Amino acid sequence: MLPYELIKKKRDGLRLDREEIEYLIREYVAGTIPDYQMSALLMAVFFRGMETGELAVWTEAMVNSGDVISFSGDGPYLDKHSTGGIGDKVSLPLAALLACNGIHVPMISGRGLGHTGGTLDKLESIPGFRTNLSVEEFKRQVDEVGCCIIGQTASLAPADKKLYALRDVTATVDSIPLIASSILSKKKASGISGLLMDVKTGSGAFMTSRESARELAATLVSGGGALGLTVRAFITEMGRPLGAAVGNSLEVVESIEILQGRGPEDSTALVVRFAAEMIMMAGLERERARAMERVERTVQDGSGLMMFAKMIEAQGGDPKVVEDTWRLPIAAGRLDFCAKSAGCIRAMDCEKIGQAIVALGGGRKKIDDIVDPSVGLVVHRKVGDSVSAGEPLATIYYAGENRLDEALGLLGRVYSFAEEAVESPELIHEML
Amino acid sequence: MLPYELIKKKRDGLRLDREEIEYLIREYVAGTIPDYQMSALLMAVFFRGMETGELAVWTEAMVNSGDVISFSGDGPYLDKHSTGGIGDKVSLPLAALLACNGIHVPMISGRGLGHTGGTLDKLESIPGFRTNLSVEEFKRQVDEVGCCIIGQTASLAPADKKLYALRDVTATVDSIPLIASSILSKKKASGISGLLMDVKTGSGAFMTSRESARELAATLVSGGGALGLTVRAFITEMGRPLGAAVGNSLEVVESIEILQGRGPEDSTALVVRFAAEMIMMAGLERERARAMERVERTVQDGSGLMMFAKMIEAQGGDPKVVEDTWRLPIAAGRLDFCAKSAGCIRAMDCEKIGQAIVALGGGRKKIDDIVDPSVGLVVHRKVGDSVSAGEPLATIYYAGENRLDEALGLLGRVYSFAEEAVESPELIHEML
Repeated sequence: MLPYELIKKKRDGLRLDREEIEYLIREYVAGTIPDYQMSALLMAVFFRGMETGELAVWTEAMVNSGDVISFSGDGPYLDKHSTGGIGDKVSLPLAALLACNGIHVPMISGRGLGHTGGTLDKLESIPGFRTNLSVEEFKRQVDEVGCCIIGQTASLAPADKKLYALRDVTATVDSIPLIASSILSKKKASGISGLLMDVKTGSGAFMTSRESARELAATLVSGGGALGLTVRAFITEMGRPLGAAVGNSLEVVESIEILQGRGPEDSTALVVRFAAEMIMMAGLERERARAMERVERTVQDGSGLMMFAKMIEAQGGDPKVVEDTWRLPIAAGRLDFCAKSAGCIRAMDCEKIGQAIVALGGGRKKIDDIVDPSVGLVVHRKVGDSVSAGEPLATIYYAGENRLDEALGLLGRVYSFAEEAVESPELIHEML
Repeated sequence: MLPYELIKKKRDGLRLDREEIEYLIREYVAGTIPDYQMSALLMAVFFRGMETGELAVWTEAMVNSGDVISFSGDGPYLDKHSTGGIGDKVSLPLAALLACNGIHVPMISGRGLGHTGGTLDKLESIPGFRTNLSVEEFKRQVDEVGCCIIGQTASLAPADKKLYALRDVTATVDSIPLIASSILSKKKASGISGLLMDVKTGSGAFMTSRESARELAATLVSGGGALGLTVRAFITEMGRPLGAAVGNSLEVVESIEILQGRGPEDSTALVVRFAAEMIMMAGLERERARAMERVERTVQDGSGLMMFAKMIEAQGGDPKVVEDTWRLPIAAGRLDFCAKSAGCIRAMDCEKIGQAIVALGGGRKKIDDIVDPSVGLVVHRKVGDSVSAGEPLATIYYAGENRLDEALGLLGRVYSFAEEAVESPELIHEML
């Protein structure tokens, strides 16, 4: 088999067969197929796409490039993954609520880069919290505690690591089959049987258009199905931040508030809905209303919050943060960002909010930047809200005034106003 | 400037500007931009194409990556280039006929690979002939003799050499702007002011379809124009071999016959027409009929043949071959390949003829294969001819019977027949 012939085949819109795909992934990971051939192939995939069966074989080959976690318990083992957004702290309370409802949650998450935050950065704002557990520690905690959230390990889907690094420098990241295979290969290798995908759409999302979000969601559902992984996909609104808090420590505080039943309406609603959906995916309830009630009960009786503390403790963190949130590092500098004139908020540029967090020191421009967990924003007014002149739109939490100017400049370009009333878009657009 | 951004720009169908293109070519040749980024860009060019102005800038950057020959004489300096075909020996008699009509012909040619032959291989079948002259020797001969045919030199358009090697292993060869920039950059660097392009179409051509041949021809004309190079393009028939001889020595024999006024009708017609067109391009005649007459005179008075001998001698070859063609290596083994039944020849698969030459040892599968100049075919019957059962279609010239079987197998698949009469397609389809 010649890599040249396979590049040509894909370039000409033909389907690669199993033997060809397995050869490509195997030899690329082994270093026999050079980067310059793989990048040409990836660009051809960008233009030609992949059929469902082809994508499943490609993903399977990526899974088989490394170890696959196998849990010894009865399960169910489910996970949730989001394409990333602003203020998206759903994973933290969700993992805890699922675990105290009998679902094992082995969650492998990422760090923030550019305007999107990362679950690991949020958790690491909790003093002592370790995200670099070994696979053995991870497995044990999932089975003993019920949930565990760690970072990528080198042994799972190494093909994805190598392919992603190449895509990142060859403008082949935003190809739907390549995004889907990257997500699905890592999830399949983590030993789960079902996945809830939260595909964000809007100004703060990776997929800004509804159409491309829908295409990715559909590809994840069909690709997952072909791999023997049940995938349920939601398309949710990211034309405004989710919840109120944006920034690492502040999002942990909001996660705790959600588990205390006093979180913001939208982030709480998404956590409860996702938890209910995953309870149904696990076959523990058949009706949505019953599943929702069950989740709400574990909020009200405090068992979700206890589970969160248990997970924190199991991973070396200070479990008392769930009661005393002042134990988290929160920046001392506070400044209200206020509306210049009255009006109704027509739109928000959420990417700019993410950039403002980076400007404050709470995110990364480059992969090795150090994150300040204490800074962030609490957003008071969002799309559809009417505001009067001088009213605070958000409160900035900052450490060092030298970082304020750039953040204020960015925030000044976040909000746009209308004179007439604006309807706020639905939080959940679709479920596939 | 980031290569990533430029790949993305081209991928998204936007036009690269001068500064961006110059950066890409310069840094790629310098090794700062790695192969894996260039191959992704080339694949994006394959899908997105290039606009005329963009192509001209890209080509100019390739020209400027190395030396540019500058002739000291008054000129005119013109060249002809063909996209390659079966039995295409036009360059040999054409260069001689132009030189004795006052046109300087600095011709830089290639070797055969796969099913297409190469001008250098043909010339090197002449005992002693050298194609590896230095640029200084080349310039001197063009000005003193009038024509010179040599191989690629490392100092002209080195960007093309590096890009071509990458395209060759990443399935990005057959992109019209990339083909055009490769041809035009080398021709522009060779110091000519005008180029006649022979774009072949049909079963033995690189561009099998008429449509893609026309697109390439148009791109060469407009791209050349934007570079200050007058390009006249012909689209000619390659659904049958050109002339009778196919194979290195045999094609030199046919070239001599053309210059003696006794060559096959079609190859002679093409040589005369091209020579006349280039005489008009040079402004030496305004009417085609006058230009044709002028060329025919230099055939009839033997000055074309004398010029060919002069060029051979100047390049170290044996000039007596033009009188005594037995001085050329011609294989001793002869075998007629005959029609099995009567019929009219409907089509010929010329690629198979080229493969048969390779099978006989007269071509290359790999770039470092050694070519036997003595073998080949003389084709007696072509598309449109009616044949009776047992009539010879071609004579095989072979060296060693062990190579015959594969060649006969391939030849067996060349001809297809019809019961009714078939019209032979025109030799020249279009002129742009």
